[in-house]
Amino acid sequence: MSDQDAAFVKTITPRSKDFSRWYTDVIRRAELADYSPVKGSMVIRPYGYAIWELMQQALDRRIKETGHVNAYFPLFIPESLLKKEAAHVEGFAPEVAWVTHGGDEQLEERLVVRPTSEAIIGTMYSKWIQSWRDLPLLINQWANVVRWEKVTRLFLRTTEFLWQEGHTVHETEEEAQEETLKMLGVYQDFTETELAMPVLKGLKTESEKFAGALRTYSIEALMGDGRALQAGTSHNLGQNFAKVFDISFQGRDKTMQYGWQTSWGVTTRLIGGLIMIHGDDSGLILPPRVAPYQVVMVPIPRGDWRATVLPHAERIKGELEALGIRVTLDDREEHSPGWKYAEWELRGVPLRLEIGPRDVKSEQVMLVRRDTRDKLPVPMDGLGSYIDDLLRTIQNALFEKAVAFRDEHTLRTTDRAEFNEHFEGRPGYVVSPWCGSADCEAEIKTATQATIRNLPLDPAPASGNCIQCGKLGEVDAYFAKSY
Amino acid sequence: MSDQDAAFVKTITPRSKDFSRWYTDVIRRAELADYSPVKGSMVIRPYGYAIWELMQQALDRRIKETGHVNAYFPLFIPESLLKKEAAHVEGFAPEVAWVTHGGDEQLEERLVVRPTSEAIIGTMYSKWIQSWRDLPLLINQWANVVRWEKVTRLFLRTTEFLWQEGHTVHETEEEAQEETLKMLGVYQDFTETELAMPVLKGLKTESEKFAGALRTYSIEALMGDGRALQAGTSHNLGQNFAKVFDISFQGRDKTMQYGWQTSWGVTTRLIGGLIMIHGDDSGLILPPRVAPYQVVMVPIPRGDWRATVLPHAERIKGELEALGIRVTLDDREEHSPGWKYAEWELRGVPLRLEIGPRDVKSEQVMLVRRDTRDKLPVPMDGLGSYIDDLLRTIQNALFEKAVAFRDEHTLRTTDRAEFNEHFEGRPGYVVSPWCGSADCEAEIKTATQATIRNLPLDPAPASGNCIQCGKLGEVDAYFAKSY
Repeated sequence: MSDQDAAFVKTITPRSKDFSRWYTDVIRRAELADYSPVKGSMVIRPYGYAIWELMQQALDRRIKETGHVNAYFPLFIPESLLKKEAAHVEGFAPEVAWVTHGGDEQLEERLVVRPTSEAIIGTMYSKWIQSWRDLPLLINQWANVVRWEKVTRLFLRTTEFLWQEGHTVHETEEEAQEETLKMLGVYQDFTETELAMPVLKGLKTESEKFAGALRTYSIEALMGDGRALQAGTSHNLGQNFAKVFDISFQGRDKTMQYGWQTSWGVTTRLIGGLIMIHGDDSGLILPPRVAPYQVVMVPIPRGDWRATVLPHAERIKGELEALGIRVTLDDREEHSPGWKYAEWELRGVPLRLEIGPRDVKSEQVMLVRRDTRDKLPVPMDGLGSYIDDLLRTIQNALFEKAVAFRDEHTLRTTDRAEFNEHFEGRPGYVVSPWCGSADCEAEIKTATQATIRNLPLDPAPASGNCIQCGKLGEVDAYFAKSY
Repeated sequence: MSDQDAAFVKTITPRSKDFSRWYTDVIRRAELADYSPVKGSMVIRPYGYAIWELMQQALDRRIKETGHVNAYFPLFIPESLLKKEAAHVEGFAPEVAWVTHGGDEQLEERLVVRPTSEAIIGTMYSKWIQSWRDLPLLINQWANVVRWEKVTRLFLRTTEFLWQEGHTVHETEEEAQEETLKMLGVYQDFTETELAMPVLKGLKTESEKFAGALRTYSIEALMGDGRALQAGTSHNLGQNFAKVFDISFQGRDKTMQYGWQTSWGVTTRLIGGLIMIHGDDSGLILPPRVAPYQVVMVPIPRGDWRATVLPHAERIKGELEALGIRVTLDDREEHSPGWKYAEWELRGVPLRLEIGPRDVKSEQVMLVRRDTRDKLPVPMDGLGSYIDDLLRTIQNALFEKAVAFRDEHTLRTTDRAEFNEHFEGRPGYVVSPWCGSADCEAEIKTATQATIRNLPLDPAPASGNCIQCGKLGEVDAYFAKSY
């Protein structure tokens, strides 16, 4: 590596030295996002947005395959609507942006910029639903939302973010519960298959549930620094919103009944998760399925390379594209191959294809994996299907590596000293018995900063007494420090 | 048609009787959109949003094929940024929503909810652009925007709407002009190919141009009531924003220069245009390329139809889907075929496929075109490719019909009496000479309500003297009443 190339990489703080600074450095140097002049709001730059588009496509397909349709509801919510559900307004009022004027005129009623859309959607559902024949109503929305955060962090916590929010209404409590868990499963399939991000499905405790929900479920992923990231949530809303927004219907038995609701969402914070679960000191490592470019081709500029190498590179590019592989050819004159290697490693492109005059003569190319850095000389003949297979191998390898990391960083203990020691040193999950009391949960948080991420969906009996109070354990909970 | 079916259709005001009420009736009965509790904001319901998704896909593909990439910029713009470009703030300040509080705290500086994003994007471009090597910068955004409208109308003019906005920066004035016209051409190709909506490309007059632009171009479409709809705009911004936001770069000659910018956008109002250009007394007529369902299958419930007819219907459905045709099978028991015919005609599905026991025996189906109401018995053998061709035929027929309507409703005259008479009676375009004066333009508007929609891109000499002042004509302008 030349001095120039080394200097390039040095602009990123090493991950091992300062994870938080590494995270921000990677985002800015890889041009995923940038700070904006609006406090707490970020700009998602084209490279970051291309990742989001791939995520959207993959998740939208799953949302539609499970029978949902997309729609769009207003950005603004009148104050009186937000206030209808008491727990909901209590949870969200402190963190909403208020619109008070339109043009030169003060509004008669203040509007909030949606922090989530239960209130406005509930109002419309009340109009649309009359009979059990109108159910289930299965609608999703892709939208921006605003929560006035005091401390923000690129992708993970910003005043404005992008997300999808599903809002469904069902005839029975059972169906709503089934939907809540079905969408949690869709999220798991999506994050594990597309993002190579293993997650734990589970139930949130009462203190961590969504404002207004009956029960909140989450998927949690363990990041490279051992902190957990809540990667998606699915709420069983019961009849809480249906009662205040009057979402009622005539049932099969002709009686009037309230609908049973769910809501569920994932956000652009998943891009932050993607960075933190796979990246290394050289920058991003993107899973092939959500990589804007799956292959970067770097021609080696020796001799009359524009005449001898470039035509072959362009032919190979065409062949790969015909197979649906996303590929870019970096033939810029102003940068050395070494510079380009560092640049595209930083940007996390899963596979680099080097091709020079000698490769052309021997009818092969050099492939370099971003994740393992393995160098593989591969014949041009059959290259497309080789790369297609290799991209799948890389996708699986990233998932398996993340699973292994999580397993290595998961401690099961009934011993409080060990529990404490863990959160002082090597981070990760600690699975320990808990009595079910919110007080114990809060005390553990104060002592260790760790919170209960979630509780197993089908809990076995607790492995011992509560790690905090020593009384009868109810369930083994997943504790971790989190984002 | 049974009485029940007739009653169904009667819920729509006839188009010929009251175009405006017909428009609203169709939107609400076809469940494209609904009013919301937020003044001036609408809900785009799933059927309407599915049309928007198809439009987005078709336009996004064209935007990317012409070298642009997507990104996302903040919803909020600090007041001080909006104020930087004098003409821009003058144009937009009267119609923006103001955010004054975040949570419980009053903001130090008010924020506007973006009415358009030149200001926030210009600020970012100033950071990102240093050298001519960073140009051209070709970015597009899909987003919601808010303009505080006093009089609103579903899809056509709402406080919040969805759109795409392209924002580009170029090295030279020539390149910016080329881009401005290229995107106008992309819009024309998109509206004509996908929406079967013929448009006139042209230059807006000074009084109608975008606040802050050097020149604004538009595409204009003639609706079924003879009013024009501005269907998209493309602006050459010159260096106006570059100078106030300091978007400068070191040129190839090492001197510092300001960038040359463009911006361009189309919105969800195109859905309104789609309704008004093709619809009839029975409701929507959707062009196949943007129809959520291109074919609706209605089984005739005679005898043991679930055993004898339905399996054939399902097989045909599968065959059509395998060809990429969007199809729905309406096998609801609670509605008669007649009711279903009226319902799906209202929803504008291009092709109805009827299949009953007799059809199964004779191995054929009945196809009914929504646009012409032609009934075509077609053999099951080879049905898929027949329908595929027929959908293309329908798409072309809708376009040709709209072109013929426009031609029939375009009058060329140099006679003021004829000009006035036209706008009192049968509406449409009037092409007449204009001297170029804003006063004449304003006086014509006062007298007739007609405005200059746009001026030809490559104008021939004027056909006579100005239709208003009688002085030397500069160009033949397209006048029309408009939305």
